Amino acid sequence: MALDKRNTIVALDAAGLRDRLASGAVSALDVTEAYLARIAERDTEIRAFAWHDPDHARAQARALDAQRQRGVAIGPLHGLPVAIKDIIDTAGIPTENGCALDKGRKPLKDAFVTERLRAAGAVIIGKTVTTELAFMDPAETRNPHNPAHTPGGSSAGSAAAVAAAMVPLAIGTQTGGSVIRPASFCGVTGFKPSFGAIPRRGVLAQSPSLDTVGVFARTAADAALVAEVLYGFDATDPATALIPHPRLLETAMQDPPVKPVFAVLQPPGWAQASPEMQAAMGQLTEALGDQAFPLTLPALFDDALPARERIHLAEMARCYYTYARDGGDELGESLRHGINTGNDIRARDYLAALDLPKVLNPALAEVFDRCDAILCPAATGPAPEGLGSTGNPVFNGLWTYLGTPAITLPLLTAENGLPMGVQMIAARGNDARLMRNARWLESWADSA
Amino acid sequence: MALDKRNTIVALDAAGLRDRLASGAVSALDVTEAYLARIAERDTEIRAFAWHDPDHARAQARALDAQRQRGVAIGPLHGLPVAIKDIIDTAGIPTENGCALDKGRKPLKDAFVTERLRAAGAVIIGKTVTTELAFMDPAETRNPHNPAHTPGGSSAGSAAAVAAAMVPLAIGTQTGGSVIRPASFCGVTGFKPSFGAIPRRGVLAQSPSLDTVGVFARTAADAALVAEVLYGFDATDPATALIPHPRLLETAMQDPPVKPVFAVLQPPGWAQASPEMQAAMGQLTEALGDQAFPLTLPALFDDALPARERIHLAEMARCYYTYARDGGDELGESLRHGINTGNDIRARDYLAALDLPKVLNPALAEVFDRCDAILCPAATGPAPEGLGSTGNPVFNGLWTYLGTPAITLPLLTAENGLPMGVQMIAARGNDARLMRNARWLESWADSA
Repeated sequence: MALDKRNTIVALDAAGLRDRLASGAVSALDVTEAYLARIAERDTEIRAFAWHDPDHARAQARALDAQRQRGVAIGPLHGLPVAIKDIIDTAGIPTENGCALDKGRKPLKDAFVTERLRAAGAVIIGKTVTTELAFMDPAETRNPHNPAHTPGGSSAGSAAAVAAAMVPLAIGTQTGGSVIRPASFCGVTGFKPSFGAIPRRGVLAQSPSLDTVGVFARTAADAALVAEVLYGFDATDPATALIPHPRLLETAMQDPPVKPVFAVLQPPGWAQASPEMQAAMGQLTEALGDQAFPLTLPALFDDALPARERIHLAEMARCYYTYARDGGDELGESLRHGINTGNDIRARDYLAALDLPKVLNPALAEVFDRCDAILCPAATGPAPEGLGSTGNPVFNGLWTYLGTPAITLPLLTAENGLPMGVQMIAARGNDARLMRNARWLESWADSA
Repeated sequence: MALDKRNTIVALDAAGLRDRLASGAVSALDVTEAYLARIAERDTEIRAFAWHDPDHARAQARALDAQRQRGVAIGPLHGLPVAIKDIIDTAGIPTENGCALDKGRKPLKDAFVTERLRAAGAVIIGKTVTTELAFMDPAETRNPHNPAHTPGGSSAGSAAAVAAAMVPLAIGTQTGGSVIRPASFCGVTGFKPSFGAIPRRGVLAQSPSLDTVGVFARTAADAALVAEVLYGFDATDPATALIPHPRLLETAMQDPPVKPVFAVLQPPGWAQASPEMQAAMGQLTEALGDQAFPLTLPALFDDALPARERIHLAEMARCYYTYARDGGDELGESLRHGINTGNDIRARDYLAALDLPKVLNPALAEVFDRCDAILCPAATGPAPEGLGSTGNPVFNGLWTYLGTPAITLPLLTAENGLPMGVQMIAARGNDARLMRNARWLESWADSA
């Protein structure tokens, strides 16, 4: 393929690419080849992929092209390469959970989300690096904006693969801040839907009360395009419900009926935000004028982060019991420490932590009566230097805990040139409207 | 009212009484007066009622009679007196949870089940004694078959009130064995529906993963009559589901399509059954001939009772936190000990206990492939002498834990003349078929 065609393909966002694939201007194989070339070029340095097989990707693309030529109806992701975090099962394809104990593990069945991606016509182009068992010990992936910096975690490979344009779309998960933080550090759009929106069958369970599947893309519209395919009900996931499928993409593409109003929040842990992040949020508030007002939450919300952590570590100690038993010192230090801490948490305190949202949610509902969405930093600042830590998730846990949808948009740039994300949050279940307001903010920032 | 009319009324089961009320042969006031007289006669000794107010009952009965005379459609429990365990909220009527700390507590709202009973036309004739906070410390209620013996607990008053014919129907709850055991000791029919079948809004929460509303009656048909009214969905109770309303009574009244086959189980803890209970179960098996086969469960089921207890005590420690904080030494010894034990249970072990049914249920499903229902003792023997203990719930916890429907029928008599119950269990969700098989066994026993 000519270099300029390849560059054109890789430069397009998923929505633009989808239109060209639908019109026949490009084939699925063209798109796959363009991205494979990009992976070959970039991934030696970035190390976003835990597994990828060019021939396997080409075979899927050829089959999709043949389908299209036979006139078979094509799915909403027809021909679009997607990368999947390596804690999400892919039938016959290694899914090693970033853990030496799972070396060589090949699931027999696809996860729910993998099934949905295939049915929608996506090309599974590879599995992306996760931190060990999706916890806090850093993996080998580097930040495409500066390889001396962390890409964040745990969905490190998914964020970096999208940021390096090695794939237009990727799937990740968040239990604390594992979608929003790496998306912010890597300068891409990260979307964590409402808790329970996407079934987790076939996804490594770390903390079933918190684990949430999310997506990475270049724009809010692209995030809506891929997330919409994944929403649904699965009888094996008690967090899911039989509710109408939200029209994420259609709603995202609409203009808000009135100019949206945002509550700009200094969330619990605000003092941990870097001075430039604090200043940037202040400037954003100012620029939004009468569309923004400052917000702080009642003191009760300060209990949310330790409560979330209690649930996380207690459930992780339960879910990772055999890893801890069999892995011993081979497991990363953070993971071992997390499991040990989790082992000592008392059931009563765990249950109290599960109950706290019953008090916090009504307080949050009052906030959402007064605004269309909350804005706050996606991370404390740009990606920290070094690969020794995946960075601070302090601004992410509250929204995972309360199950609200959250999206980060790469609207800010730090003095060192690295991206910083603005996080937007809506009430639980209002995912489609969140997408619409995120697109509004994207456009507003573009034109500002 | 003439004594013989009164005696006729009190001698009728609820189904018979319902038919006479419907035909106008007796009025709701007649029925209420008959039962009020019976309470006046018996309750000084038995102490089944925590609260009852004859005028309040008469007022309800008169209103129901007036409704009927105006030609308003009458509910399925029209004019039937029902007693409600005192941990179930009744608007404007004391609901003291058997606990000194709740002395004088009058809820503003009815519990879900109270609403349903009123809507069905029942006369709320009184609140029945519960052990303190529905745990193990005995209350003052006595066994109507012999006041020197315990009626069992925690639904002591509900079981005793039905047994003493002070009410035809009563509502109770079971977290371990608090419906089946007192029903067995008091020689009445006790029915614990599938977990989640009856919403628990307005019922004191002791262990939300186990708490189950149940009913007491004289026959399986009467239990079906009242339980059917209580089944439903309530958005505030996550254990409930939007599923079709089961036709408990209609199914109960049908003959089984083929002769039912029962697995006669020696459940975990069998050695704790008294020799006469063991012998009686053996005789029952023999008498049922080719309709019964002996059953033991895999060793894995031995873990069920400690696992259930772990959930129970951990959740109780959470739910009763303020009682423990404010009550201190005023609380009963068993309750304090239970809360203290619960306080020390680790979240990981609690979560493991919640997971065990995922292994046990498939094993149990195989049993139900081979039989229509399981039979086992409802208790280890007849009601023990003395009021110092509510008896041994060892044969009840497994079915509460697994959420299967269970019913006890007063088919056996001990050498000392006290009743002993035969417990019948079906697969979770098969409540209506359980009722049909229970009625079959009742008839079979009557004719044997």
